[in-house]
Amino acid sequence: MSKLSYQFATRVAALQVNPLREQAKNSQTVDHYIKLTYGYPSNEAFPVDKLAKLSDKIYREHAFDFMQYGESEGIPKLRSQIKARLHKYQALNISDNDLLITSGSTQGMDLVFKLFVNEGDTVLTEEQTFVGAVNAIKSYGGYAQGLPFDDAGCIDTEVLRATLAADTSHQIKLLYLIPTFQNPMGTSMTLEKRQAVYDICKQYQVMIYEDDPYGDLLYTDKTAIPKIKSLDDVGIVIYAGSFSKILAPGSRLGYLLAPTAVFDQLILVKQVADSFSNLYWQYLASQLFEDYDFNKHIEHLRQLYRLKLETMINALRAKCQKNMSFSVPEGGYFVSIKLNDDIDGDAFYDEITQRQVGVIPGNIMSAAGKGYEKYFRLNFTLPTLVEIENGISRIGAAAEAAKK
Amino acid sequence: MSKLSYQFATRVAALQVNPLREQAKNSQTVDHYIKLTYGYPSNEAFPVDKLAKLSDKIYREHAFDFMQYGESEGIPKLRSQIKARLHKYQALNISDNDLLITSGSTQGMDLVFKLFVNEGDTVLTEEQTFVGAVNAIKSYGGYAQGLPFDDAGCIDTEVLRATLAADTSHQIKLLYLIPTFQNPMGTSMTLEKRQAVYDICKQYQVMIYEDDPYGDLLYTDKTAIPKIKSLDDVGIVIYAGSFSKILAPGSRLGYLLAPTAVFDQLILVKQVADSFSNLYWQYLASQLFEDYDFNKHIEHLRQLYRLKLETMINALRAKCQKNMSFSVPEGGYFVSIKLNDDIDGDAFYDEITQRQVGVIPGNIMSAAGKGYEKYFRLNFTLPTLVEIENGISRIGAAAEAAKK
Repeated sequence: MSKLSYQFATRVAALQVNPLREQAKNSQTVDHYIKLTYGYPSNEAFPVDKLAKLSDKIYREHAFDFMQYGESEGIPKLRSQIKARLHKYQALNISDNDLLITSGSTQGMDLVFKLFVNEGDTVLTEEQTFVGAVNAIKSYGGYAQGLPFDDAGCIDTEVLRATLAADTSHQIKLLYLIPTFQNPMGTSMTLEKRQAVYDICKQYQVMIYEDDPYGDLLYTDKTAIPKIKSLDDVGIVIYAGSFSKILAPGSRLGYLLAPTAVFDQLILVKQVADSFSNLYWQYLASQLFEDYDFNKHIEHLRQLYRLKLETMINALRAKCQKNMSFSVPEGGYFVSIKLNDDIDGDAFYDEITQRQVGVIPGNIMSAAGKGYEKYFRLNFTLPTLVEIENGISRIGAAAEAAKK
Repeated sequence: MSKLSYQFATRVAALQVNPLREQAKNSQTVDHYIKLTYGYPSNEAFPVDKLAKLSDKIYREHAFDFMQYGESEGIPKLRSQIKARLHKYQALNISDNDLLITSGSTQGMDLVFKLFVNEGDTVLTEEQTFVGAVNAIKSYGGYAQGLPFDDAGCIDTEVLRATLAADTSHQIKLLYLIPTFQNPMGTSMTLEKRQAVYDICKQYQVMIYEDDPYGDLLYTDKTAIPKIKSLDDVGIVIYAGSFSKILAPGSRLGYLLAPTAVFDQLILVKQVADSFSNLYWQYLASQLFEDYDFNKHIEHLRQLYRLKLETMINALRAKCQKNMSFSVPEGGYFVSIKLNDDIDGDAFYDEITQRQVGVIPGNIMSAAGKGYEKYFRLNFTLPTLVEIENGISRIGAAAEAAKK
C-alpha cells in the first residue's frame, strides 16, 4: 500500500495525543497499579439496581420513543425536570434561558466554542484548568489564555480586568471557568469574587462559560455558594451541568442552560454535531427523577466521597506533608498538590511511575502546557480506601527519593 | 433583562434554521397528517423484544462497564465484530485501516470535515445530497460544491476530473458521496462508475467520504455492488456506516473505517467532540451480534421495506404518473420525484401542505440550496401501507390542482 501524505486542517495540528491514553492502556496490564489519575466516579456510586428496574419500565412504556430519532434539544420532560431543579435548588433564572441536553459536558464545551470562537480568537481560562476545554478551544483555531490565580487559588480579578481592557480588537470571546471545586485545584470562588468576575465580564460584554460538573458534591456543612449564573441579569452566562460525576459517565448526558438567543444558535450546532443525544439515558434519567428522590442519591454520594477525601487528606498529612503542600477542598473530585522546592519534578515522576501509582502532572492540566512541573492532581473518588492509603504512601516515598 | 447583541463565530452564520423542524412540530398537532418526510425507520423494524432480553443480560454482566467512562475508539468487541462483518460481507480491507465508533453517522461527517476542512476549503458533493452533510461542511467554513448528475443519476465523472484538474491551489479536500441508494435520489453508482471516480480521486489525491447508511437494504435479487472502499489500495477512502437505518436511530451509533493515519487523528477530534459514544448501546449491539443472526434481521427489514416500496411505486403509477416522473430505486429509504414542466412548484407545495402530507422539497436536499424546485423526496419506510396509498393519492391530487 503506497502511502499518501494526508493534509489535515491546520487547527488539528494544535491538538496533541493525550499522553494519558498511553498511560491508561499500560496501567491496565500492571498488577497493583493504583489510579489516582482520572476524574472517574466510584463504581459504588452507580445506582445499578434502581436503574435496572427503571430500564424495564422504559422498555415497557417508551421503547419506540427511545429507539427512534429524537429532538436536538433533548426530550421535553427531562429538560423540564432539570430546569425545575436548577430553579429550585440553585436559584437560576430559567425564564430568559433555555436548556439543551448535550452528549456529556464534553460536547457542551465543543458546541459553545464552535459557536463563539473564530480562528485566531482567544478564550480566557484559569491558568490551571481542564485539559479537555483547552483542547476544544484549540480545535477551533482558538487560543486558550490562562489567567493567574490569586492567593486563594481563584483567578485574579485585576488581571482579568486589565486583560479585557487591553483587548481593544475584541478577540477575547469567552471566559471559561470552573468556579466550584475547580479542576484541578479543588478550590471554589467566593460569592464576592464571582460577583466581581461577573461585573467585569458584563462591563466588557464577554460571555462566561460556567462549567459546574462537581457543584452538587459538597462535603462540608457550609451552605453552597451561589452560581455565577444566578447573578446573570443580562444573559452573558452559559451554565454547564453534567450527569457524569453524579449519575454515570456512560450516560453521556450533560446540559447547557443558555440565554434564549444563544440556545437558538446552539441547536444549529448540535444538529451538525450528532443530531440528538442518546434517548435511552434521557428517558432513564427522567424516570429516575420521577420515581426516586435524587437529593437522597446526592447525599449518598456526599457521604461516600467525604470519607474518601478524609482518608486521602489524613494519609497526605501523615506521609507527604513535609515534602509538599496542598489545601483541603470542600467538595468535588480532586486534591491539588505542590511539591516543595527541594523535590526534583522529573525525578518525582520517574519514582511514582516505578512505584505504579498514577497522577495527573500539572503541565497537562494547564492552559500553557508548561510551568507547572511542581504540581500534580490526585483523584479520590475512584480508588478504594486501601488504594488511597497505599497510593499516598507510595507518593510520599517517591517524593523522599526525589529530594535534591 | 437588557439585551446583548451576541457575536457568534462567522462560520455559524452559514447555518440556517432547518425549516423541517417547524414543519415537524406543526405536523405533530395535526390529525391525519401523513409523513413521507424524514428518513425514519419503521417502528416495526425495531427488534424490541430481543433488545429487552439483551438489555437484562448486559445489566447483569456489564453494568459497571457501560456506566463508567469508555474509550474514544469504542468498545473493542463491537469494533472487532463490525470489522469482521465489513471484511466478510463487503470485502473491505481492514488491515491498513481502523474503525472508530461514532455517535451516529452525523458525528462521523462532523469529525471528518473538522479534520480535513480549513475555512475557505471546498468539499465536492453530489448536486442533490444529504442536507446534514452540507450543513456540517459549512459549519467549518467550508464550501459544499455540488457536482452535476449524469443521465443515470450519478455524478458526471468528466466534470469531476475537470473540477479536480482546475483546482491548482488544492482547495478541494474531500469528495462526499452516497454511492448506494443515494439520498435523495435512490440511485446507485455502477461498479465501473465507482472505479472511475476512485481512479480520478487517487490521481488527484483527494479523499473520498463514502457515506453508506442504506447499503444493506437491497430489495431486488441482484448482487450488491462492491463499495468504493473495497477498491481502495492507497488509503484515500473513509467508509461510514450507521446503525440508524438498520437497528435504531436512538442508538446514536455509527462508525468510520479509515486509513490508520487518518484514524489516529480522528481519535483526537472525537475526544474533543464527546469523549466517547454511549456505551449502553455499544454493549447492546455487540451482544445482538453475538447472540442473534444479524443477517436474518436485515432480511426481515428487506421484506418489510420491499413491500412498502412496491406499494409506493404502484400508487405513484396509478395516481401520479401523468404529472411527474421517478425511477424505481433498488434499495434504501427514498424515492425521488420530478414534477412535469406544467406543474407550478410553489402551488404544488401549497397544495400538499393543505392536504396534510409531508415531503422534502428538492432545494433543501441540494448543495446549492436552489434550482431543484421541481424535485421532492418521498420516504417509504416510516409510513404504513395505508398511509403510503393515501399520501400518494393526496400528492396526485395536489399536482393536478397545481397544473399551470
